[in-house]
Amino acid sequence: MSSSEVIDSVPETTDDELNRILSGAAEAAGPFGALPPKTRAAHLVAVADALHAHDDELVELAIAESGLPDARLRGELNRTAVQLRLFAEVLARGAYLDVVLDAADPDFAIGPRPDLRRVKLPIGPVLVYAASNFPFAFSVIGGDSASALAAGCPVVLKSHPGHPRLSARTGQVVADALRTAGAPDGVFAVIHGDRQGVDALRDERIAAAAFTGSVAGGRALFDIAAARPRPIPFFGELGSNNPVFVTPGAVRARGAEIARGYVESFTLGVGQFCTKPGLLFLPADHGLEDALVEAVRAVPGARMLTEKVSRGYGSRHDAILAAAGVRTLVDGGDPDGLAAAPTLAATDSGTLLDRGADLLDEAFGPLSIVVGYDKVDELPVLAAALEPSLTATVHLDADDPADTESARPLVTRLAEQAGRVLFNGWPTGVAVTPAMHHGGPYPSTTAPLHTSVGSRAIDRFLRPVVFQNAPAALLPDALRDDNPLGLPRETNPAGESRTWGS
Amino acid sequence: MSSSEVIDSVPETTDDELNRILSGAAEAAGPFGALPPKTRAAHLVAVADALHAHDDELVELAIAESGLPDARLRGELNRTAVQLRLFAEVLARGAYLDVVLDAADPDFAIGPRPDLRRVKLPIGPVLVYAASNFPFAFSVIGGDSASALAAGCPVVLKSHPGHPRLSARTGQVVADALRTAGAPDGVFAVIHGDRQGVDALRDERIAAAAFTGSVAGGRALFDIAAARPRPIPFFGELGSNNPVFVTPGAVRARGAEIARGYVESFTLGVGQFCTKPGLLFLPADHGLEDALVEAVRAVPGARMLTEKVSRGYGSRHDAILAAAGVRTLVDGGDPDGLAAAPTLAATDSGTLLDRGADLLDEAFGPLSIVVGYDKVDELPVLAAALEPSLTATVHLDADDPADTESARPLVTRLAEQAGRVLFNGWPTGVAVTPAMHHGGPYPSTTAPLHTSVGSRAIDRFLRPVVFQNAPAALLPDALRDDNPLGLPRETNPAGESRTWGS
Repeated sequence: MSSSEVIDSVPETTDDELNRILSGAAEAAGPFGALPPKTRAAHLVAVADALHAHDDELVELAIAESGLPDARLRGELNRTAVQLRLFAEVLARGAYLDVVLDAADPDFAIGPRPDLRRVKLPIGPVLVYAASNFPFAFSVIGGDSASALAAGCPVVLKSHPGHPRLSARTGQVVADALRTAGAPDGVFAVIHGDRQGVDALRDERIAAAAFTGSVAGGRALFDIAAARPRPIPFFGELGSNNPVFVTPGAVRARGAEIARGYVESFTLGVGQFCTKPGLLFLPADHGLEDALVEAVRAVPGARMLTEKVSRGYGSRHDAILAAAGVRTLVDGGDPDGLAAAPTLAATDSGTLLDRGADLLDEAFGPLSIVVGYDKVDELPVLAAALEPSLTATVHLDADDPADTESARPLVTRLAEQAGRVLFNGWPTGVAVTPAMHHGGPYPSTTAPLHTSVGSRAIDRFLRPVVFQNAPAALLPDALRDDNPLGLPRETNPAGESRTWGS
Repeated sequence: MSSSEVIDSVPETTDDELNRILSGAAEAAGPFGALPPKTRAAHLVAVADALHAHDDELVELAIAESGLPDARLRGELNRTAVQLRLFAEVLARGAYLDVVLDAADPDFAIGPRPDLRRVKLPIGPVLVYAASNFPFAFSVIGGDSASALAAGCPVVLKSHPGHPRLSARTGQVVADALRTAGAPDGVFAVIHGDRQGVDALRDERIAAAAFTGSVAGGRALFDIAAARPRPIPFFGELGSNNPVFVTPGAVRARGAEIARGYVESFTLGVGQFCTKPGLLFLPADHGLEDALVEAVRAVPGARMLTEKVSRGYGSRHDAILAAAGVRTLVDGGDPDGLAAAPTLAATDSGTLLDRGADLLDEAFGPLSIVVGYDKVDELPVLAAALEPSLTATVHLDADDPADTESARPLVTRLAEQAGRVLFNGWPTGVAVTPAMHHGGPYPSTTAPLHTSVGSRAIDRFLRPVVFQNAPAALLPDALRDDNPLGLPRETNPAGESRTWGS
C-alpha cells in the first residue's frame, strides 16, 4: 500500500461535521472544566487503560502506516499511557491550580485590601495538531491532548496525514473510554484534513492551540492564530538543531564511546526526533573520524515517516553536502522513496559561522554535521551563533575539575538559548516527569515560557481568575475556607505587607 | 503650557542612542540575571526608597504634565514603591523560581530517568510601554518594569508622550538608585518617541514586551511582535468594559448606595481607569434614575490626560449618545479642550444586544451606560454577548440566600470571560497583592495566562530551563543539593512513578 493510498483511506471531515465537533467542544467546556480534579484524573486513567486494552490493534495500525518497528511502538504506547497517569497524579496533587488566598487586610500598605482568592480555570476548547514522528506520544492522545484534558479543556485533535487510520481508531478508543468513564459528550474528537485544521484554528470556539512539527508549518499556523480578530495562545514546538559540544577532556576520557553514542542518537528513529543532535562540536584534532564513519556505516537504511518528510530531507541533504567547506564523511544518499541511510558531514567552525542558515537549519532526518573547533574558549561564541534550540548537550570529563570548569562559560550561554542543558548523555529520549522542560526560545518553540512535555505542560491551558469578596456560597470548591478538595494553597494573612522589603 | 509644548520638551531618542541602550541592555542581561534573588531584592528596595526621597519633585512634575491632583499622585507614588517592595518579598521567598528536582530513577515507568533539575531564568531584555493614565504605577517604574527587573531582566522603558519630563526624570532617579545599589550598567533606560518604540520592538535584542493602553495601539504592537522573524511574547493590557450586574435583591437592600458607588467608580480619574465600569445592568424597574442623575450632576468636570485621549473620548461620547435606542440621562458634553464632565446614558438589554460594538466598545473617559434587564435569568446570556474584560462585578444581597443563589449561573459565566470577579464592590482600584489577577481573554489582554499586577506578574519574564545530569560544580545555586539560596523546592524521589494513577 502506498503512502497516498493510506492517506485516502480516511475521509476529510466535512464542514458540517467540523461545525458539530466545535460546538460540541464549546458546550462540553463548562461541565468538563467544572468537574473535581480527581474525577478528571479518573478519566485520564481510564484512557490509559483503554490504550493498553487495545495495544495489539493500535500497534498493528501504527506499523502499517508509519513503518516504525513493533518494539518502538509498544514502548511509545506505554509512554503515552504513563503520560496520562502522570497528569492524573498532577490532578490528584492539585498544586497546578496555584491557589492563592489573600485575607482581607484593613492595614494593607496601599489601603484596605479586599478578600482575594485566586485559582486557575481551563482556558476552553484546545485544538491539537498531531505530529508525524510519534504516532502515539505526540499524536491523538499524546502530551498536548493529555495536558489539555487534564486542565479541563475539551480537545479537537487534527490528525496527521502520516497515520490517518491509526488517528481515527485511537480517537474512537479515547472517546469511548472518556464516555464510559462519565466525561461529557463532545470532550474529545478527531478531525481530518489540512484545510479543516486551519478552519478550526480560525474558529472563535477554539481558545488555544498546540502543535508539534516543522518550522514552516508551525510558523504558518502561529501567524494565523496571531492574526485572528481575537488572537489565541499558540503553543508550537518547531525546529531545533540540538548542538552537542565535546571538550578535549571528554575526547581523552571516552572518545570512542562518544562517537558511538552520537551516531546512535542522530540516527535513532531515522533521525526524525525533535531532539536529534544536528551538530557535534569536537576539538579539531579529535581523531574520532574513523570511529564515527564506522559507526554510521553500521546503521542500516530504514523507512522515513512520510513522502513529504523524505522529500524535505533529501533537499536538505543535498544542500548541506553541496555547501562550500563541507566534507562528506559518509553519504547515505537521497532517500529511495521512503528509505534513507544515514549521512555524516564535517566542517570547521569558521565555515559554520560563514555559511549560517545553509548549515544551521534543521535537517529532519538521519544527517548530522561534525564541526571541528580550535579552543574551548571559542565554544560560547559558536553557541551564540546558533539558533535557540530545545536541547544543548555538553560532554566533559567530570572527573577532571579543570576540564569541567573550562565548560562554565559555554554552559551559561547554552542555558540562555536552550530549554534543556544535558551533560554526558544524548538529547534524544525526553523523560516525562515533573521537572522536564521541553521548550525553548523561537524557533524551537513559539512560546518560550512553556513546555510541551512533563507535568508543567498543563499550565498552557489554564488561566487565572481571582474572586474578590465573594459570598461563601458562590466560591468555587478550590477557594472555600474548608478546602473540600484538599488542595495545597498559598495563604497570605493580614499584616504581611508591613514586612515587605524591610 | 499646552500638552504639545510638554511633549516637545523632551527630545526623541536618537538612533545612535537607541542602539547604545539596546546593546547596554543585552550586555547587562547576563550579569543582572545571575545575581542572587536577594541582591536584586535590595536593588528594588533601593529604587522604592529613591522614589520616596524624590517624591515632592516627581509629584510636582506629574501634576504639571498630567493635571492629576496632588493627593492622588502621592498615593500612586506610594503604591509604586509598595509594588517594588512586594517584588522584593517575592524574590526573598524564592518560590517564583518554581524549582523542581527529579531524582534519577532507574525504575521509572518508561525507562531509567536521569537526574533532572528545573529552574526559571530571566527571558532577557524587556521593552515596557508606559501608560498614560498612571504616571507612576503603570509608567516608568510601574508594575511591568518592577516585575521585569525582579525577574532579572534589563528594562528599556518607552515613555508615554503624556508625561515626558516626568518619565525622563523618574528614569534618572531609577537608574541612579540601581547604579548606587550595585546593579550592572545598562539595566534600565528610558527611550522617547513612538517610532523608537516600534524600532525597539523589532530589535533582536528585545526578548519580551509589556504594554498598557488602548486596543488599537496594543493590537498594532502585538502584531509587530508576532510578525518578527523571531516572535516574542507580548503582554498587552488593552481595553475592557468592566460590566456590573445588580440583582433585584441588591437594589432592594441598598439601591441608593449602589447608585452613588457606581457614579463614583466610573468618574474616578475622569473615567480613565482600565477598570472603569462601562456598563451597569439594573432591573428595568430599578427606580434609581433620579439618584443616578443626581450623583452624576454632583461630579465636576476635570482635565483629561492628553489631547489624544480627550479627542478619542469625544468621538465615543457622540457615537453612543447618537445610537438608536439610547437615552441620555446626563450629558456632560464633548471635552472642552482637555476638560470633561461625566455623561450617563441608558438603554435596555435588547438594544444593547442589537447594537453590539457601537455600545460595547470601551469609552475611555467619564461615560457609562445603564442597561435595564427584565429577569435575572437573562443575565448570563447578556454577559455572554459582551467582550471579555479585566473585571466583572456582581452586586447581590448576601443576606438573602435566594438572591445570592440566583446569581450562580451569571458568576459561572463571568469567570469564563473576566480575570477578576468581584462582589458588592467596584472594580476601580486594583490591590497589589499575591493573589491579584489583572488580566483576561482578548481584548482585555493579549496574553490571558498572565497578570500585569501582583506577585505573579513576574512569571511573564521567566523561562524554564532543565539541567540533566549536570556535574555539581556547574549547577546554578538554585539547583545545588545544599540549596544555598534556601529556596522552596519540589522534590520527586525515585520510585514515585509506580504510584501514578493507581
